[in-house]
Amino acid sequence: MSISCLTPAERDSALAALPLWSLRADGLALVRTLRFADFAAAFGFMTRVAILAEKADHHPEWSNVYNRVEITLTTHDAGGLSQRDVALARAIDAAAIGAA
Amino acid sequence: MSISCLTPAERDSALAALPLWSLRADGLALVRTLRFADFAAAFGFMTRVAILAEKADHHPEWSNVYNRVEITLTTHDAGGLSQRDVALARAIDAAAIGAA
Repeated sequence: MSISCLTPAERDSALAALPLWSLRADGLALVRTLRFADFAAAFGFMTRVAILAEKADHHPEWSNVYNRVEITLTTHDAGGLSQRDVALARAIDAAAIGAA
Repeated sequence: MSISCLTPAERDSALAALPLWSLRADGLALVRTLRFADFAAAFGFMTRVAILAEKADHHPEWSNVYNRVEITLTTHDAGGLSQRDVALARAIDAAAIGAA
């Protein structure tokens, strides 16, 4: 199944509904940084996201330093943002309730 | 308890015993990139390392993209490499047996 990129209008609409996410400078990815109380809390969150991502067969690019997690969502097969990124961003927001 | 940096001689000796790790260009961190069969294998490894790190109260700076994990070890309290980084690198190598 091929995956198509969001149109500019779809992208703007998705971003408006995801206020905790930013568009990467090149327009091809969503980014969000989250902060937790400590490492255990940050990694607990990552574990929830890992399970969601594996289930969706769509994986984040992410980094962690102690209590901080930086997430980038993009769809390589589409060469930019797709509906998969929007769906994963929503699921991440739900998993991160309480994080700053 | 203050944490002291490795001396240059201690650092060289540690590096010689950690052939899978490189010294970051600034000399202040150990770095290793690992590749696994897939995301689930990569994140399973990260989970093992997270538990080891939390137990040691010394945490990696790391990123993950699908089956790849990049790890940086440094000791902020010491302003560079300490024995804690060497110990965590050894533990990571033990956890990563089988990874490339």
